Amino acid sequence: MTPTALDLPQANPLPPETQRYFALCVEKLGFVPNVLRAYAFDVDKLNAFTALYNDLMLGPSGLSKLEREMIAVAVSAENRCFYCLVAHGAAVRQLSGDPELGERIAFNWRTAALEPRVRAMLAFAVRMTRAFAEIAEADRQALRDEGLSDRDIWDVASVAAFFNMTNRVASATAMEPNPEYHGQAR
Amino acid sequence: MTPTALDLPQANPLPPETQRYFALCVEKLGFVPNVLRAYAFDVDKLNAFTALYNDLMLGPSGLSKLEREMIAVAVSAENRCFYCLVAHGAAVRQLSGDPELGERIAFNWRTAALEPRVRAMLAFAVRMTRAFAEIAEADRQALRDEGLSDRDIWDVASVAAFFNMTNRVASATAMEPNPEYHGQAR
Amino acid sequence: MTPTALDLPQANPLPPETQRYFALCVEKLGFVPNVLRAYAFDVDKLNAFTALYNDLMLGPSGLSKLEREMIAVAVSAENRCFYCLVAHGAAVRQLSGDPELGERIAFNWRTAALEPRVRAMLAFAVRMTRAFAEIAEADRQALRDEGLSDRDIWDVASVAAFFNMTNRVASATAMEPNPEYHGQAR
Amino acid sequence: MTPTALDLPQANPLPPETQRYFALCVEKLGFVPNVLRAYAFDVDKLNAFTALYNDLMLGPSGLSKLEREMIAVAVSAENRCFYCLVAHGAAVRQLSGDPELGERIAFNWRTAALEPRVRAMLAFAVRMTRAFAEIAEADRQALRDEGLSDRDIWDVASVAAFFNMTNRVASATAMEPNPEYHGQAR
Amino acid sequence: MTPTALDLPQANPLPPETQRYFALCVEKLGFVPNVLRAYAFDVDKLNAFTALYNDLMLGPSGLSKLEREMIAVAVSAENRCFYCLVAHGAAVRQLSGDPELGERIAFNWRTAALEPRVRAMLAFAVRMTRAFAEIAEADRQALRDEGLSDRDIWDVASVAAFFNMTNRVASATAMEPNPEYHGQAR
Amino acid sequence: MTPTALDLPQANPLPPETQRYFALCVEKLGFVPNVLRAYAFDVDKLNAFTALYNDLMLGPSGLSKLEREMIAVAVSAENRCFYCLVAHGAAVRQLSGDPELGERIAFNWRTAALEPRVRAMLAFAVRMTRAFAEIAEADRQALRDEGLSDRDIWDVASVAAFFNMTNRVASATAMEPNPEYHGQAR
Repeated sequence: MTPTALDLPQANPLPPETQRYFALCVEKLGFVPNVLRAYAFDVDKLNAFTALYNDLMLGPSGLSKLEREMIAVAVSAENRCFYCLVAHGAAVRQLSGDPELGERIAFNWRTAALEPRVRAMLAFAVRMTRAFAEIAEADRQALRDEGLSDRDIWDVASVAAFFNMTNRVASATAMEPNPEYHGQAR
Repeated sequence: MTPTALDLPQANPLPPETQRYFALCVEKLGFVPNVLRAYAFDVDKLNAFTALYNDLMLGPSGLSKLEREMIAVAVSAENRCFYCLVAHGAAVRQLSGDPELGERIAFNWRTAALEPRVRAMLAFAVRMTRAFAEIAEADRQALRDEGLSDRDIWDVASVAAFFNMTNRVASATAMEPNPEYHGQAR
Repeated sequence: MTPTALDLPQANPLPPETQRYFALCVEKLGFVPNVLRAYAFDVDKLNAFTALYNDLMLGPSGLSKLEREMIAVAVSAENRCFYCLVAHGAAVRQLSGDPELGERIAFNWRTAALEPRVRAMLAFAVRMTRAFAEIAEADRQALRDEGLSDRDIWDVASVAAFFNMTNRVASATAMEPNPEYHGQAR
Repeated sequence: MTPTALDLPQANPLPPETQRYFALCVEKLGFVPNVLRAYAFDVDKLNAFTALYNDLMLGPSGLSKLEREMIAVAVSAENRCFYCLVAHGAAVRQLSGDPELGERIAFNWRTAALEPRVRAMLAFAVRMTRAFAEIAEADRQALRDEGLSDRDIWDVASVAAFFNMTNRVASATAMEPNPEYHGQAR
Repeated sequence: MTPTALDLPQANPLPPETQRYFALCVEKLGFVPNVLRAYAFDVDKLNAFTALYNDLMLGPSGLSKLEREMIAVAVSAENRCFYCLVAHGAAVRQLSGDPELGERIAFNWRTAALEPRVRAMLAFAVRMTRAFAEIAEADRQALRDEGLSDRDIWDVASVAAFFNMTNRVASATAMEPNPEYHGQAR
Repeated sequence: MTPTALDLPQANPLPPETQRYFALCVEKLGFVPNVLRAYAFDVDKLNAFTALYNDLMLGPSGLSKLEREMIAVAVSAENRCFYCLVAHGAAVRQLSGDPELGERIAFNWRTAALEPRVRAMLAFAVRMTRAFAEIAEADRQALRDEGLSDRDIWDVASVAAFFNMTNRVASATAMEPNPEYHGQAR
């Protein structure tokens, strides 16, 4: 069974490099995330997706991995994307060691006691999710005022934009998250 | 000057492969699209972006290149993204040879005389841009009813989602389109 | 400390009947729910609230307690009410014995595999939360078509409306849920 | 005939206490308000509703009865609830002795020449009706700045929230207001 | 004092023709409607406005004057325009001889017991007020199905569009309705 | 063929004055704008429309013709009116001699480098297009702060309101712009 509502079975056989990547996921996470299994009907698409994802979420950045995951969850909450709230909500719980924080960001990030820098990031990310055609210099300046560099602003914008993409792919295809996430780091 | 409101100058020197890619752009288009120049402060990010872009917009698909560009423009119009409307509006004019069609998709695609298959794609793409948390099987079935395969649906969804990402990066950074686009294919 | 952002300390001493009620909460739940502590600055208000709450959520009805809690959570999700999502999300997990179901209703109820009767209830409850000035006979008939009696419709409407009230009291006063809820029934 | 679209006839006979209450309504108002007749299919529900209503609208408060009715009407206008606009619009006309004020609050309260304290209350009440998940300390402080105590803020919030409940019950059941209201205090 | 928040006093003296027109208003209505006094700072503008108004609202049409006034009020209610709700609400009460109908259209036209033809007109007028960029042939056909000619559709559209103009002029300038309207035809 | 989806053929013969007016259009523009041909089924309606149009867009005003056209296009963009974006977008290109400016106003006026006075006008015009029931003295004052007189404010409001009318007539009737506009002043 595919992890989406589309009948797009995994390439068979997967190329050795992909097999190694999936084996690594199983080793580290206990399972292959369904988003990867969903893209695996076309290895070029899978590779393009993981390259972008890994650069944004795991690559060098002035934003911590937790900050990037909080942006991911705040955007996914605004968009009500079930897949991403489950998968990245678990990541926030895990990286922060604070299960309550995970629920706060997933339900309404405004209720969390966040430092002003993070609050500004999430406010920008949510603004980018909604009426972004009206974003102006003052919005970027609000981030600089909290100490973010222009490179940091690029990263906030890129992560927020990326989840506006993946939220839509996941929701449009009814992508199902792996059940393992639900109980993680509670 | 950078093509965005962020002070992120191009890597200097660019790696030879990027230099060749940019030279190819100048040869084919007459200029390097500003979106590439914007990403060029970090070559890994540039490569990840172009790999995804090229796969989606130029790779093999049941959707024609014009259909993919029309999805790009319909999404960008919904989002009022100046950069993407200018750049991809020009692409619709060029690929279709119909300047009026370009304006129709950019201003209000519903006014265009489109075949039902394309109309269904654009309706789905715009729905994905707005209230996509409510997308259901019936929405996907509407595409199948117009003859789209599940792979085609994936491609419609991926292109619509991608421009929901790039529209946001462009607008959040005040990315400016190259002035050459405005007069093209009028 | 009060459980809201308002400086409204509990009546002191609480009347014996209230003390007994709170003791019963501790016995059954392990704590006094913060919403009760918030109202306890005025015992008349507390009593009026609990009378209405208990009638709606625990009183005789054609709707099961789980169905009523799912309505509560679907409304609270639409409204992004942190207090109610945490407290009633736990109730859905507990009453259903299905932690995943709890997250589905809290994040996006449309992703849950629900019987048509429940799906119709939640659709009506969410419609009542949004553009309810346009509710018409057809909306009520959709519930009757799933086998709901007029009394059942009253109960769906009353529960959905009640959480539109309490979501607002909780959010307007920044009411904090008891931390015990987060880990329950995971 | 019931005063709603639901076939839920009044309990028969009504308990003596309810009969006395309804007789008192007729004596004071000339009729039994339809909202009471609607709830009278179940005397427990009727009692829970009237206890909460009477506490909020008639009980001790730092807000005058007219102020509470203006909140009721401003919320009902935002929600376009016909029943509540008719019934509580009449109350504003009656309590203020100013028929024009009644129409102003019912049509667009921003056009009324209100003292800043009342204007702040109505602004808060309408904000609670719309995007209340974003209410923050600054919103509560704006009320304190106009001299409201925390208890007053609770009362503004409770009345605004209550009408967000009753507007929904009334609209979801197509509750009809008594025709006598229309001509009152014109 | 001007009837708006703008300091634009009436032309002085008014041309004889305008004086006769205003005298006629006083004779027929008891006062000069403030909208005319507002435009009277520039007689050309006044004449252009009244010519269009009189053609639309009083000229020959397949729509009765009451139907046109109901469209005016339904649009003004959607837009929450105080001036137009007061002035044209009075007109609906007067032309229909039914004060309750006036309140229904002004508060929520969906609650009124209207013949399908009128209901279709008001639905179209409200659709034109909101998301009119999505109006399609099916919307026009819905009016034809109720027996409207293409000329009737033009008139529905023109009246709905006209009040979308005047609602905005009135609200942008804080135009005050004549107090005489409030008590009329109650 | 009529220039709208309604079967409302032009009066035949047109009165001599209208014939002269249409001939003048052909001489000056090369064609009769379709909006005039659409109204020409009823000469009184055509005359009322053109009188108002000519007064607002061509008559004496503290706003330049280009400023009025920019308001027209900014409103039409907000409303996504294809007819008006095409026809008045061409006017902005022509009057400004700046094709890029035409696209900026039509796609997202916020991206244009406008003097503060014009930016304030367009912001007011767009505010009038959306949530205008909340326009307050502060909004008008923002225009006075940029040097606009009360008469100028009236003109901004009138032009913005007028295009909120014509956008709706055009969209409700599926009015088609003359194809000549597309290539003008590129």
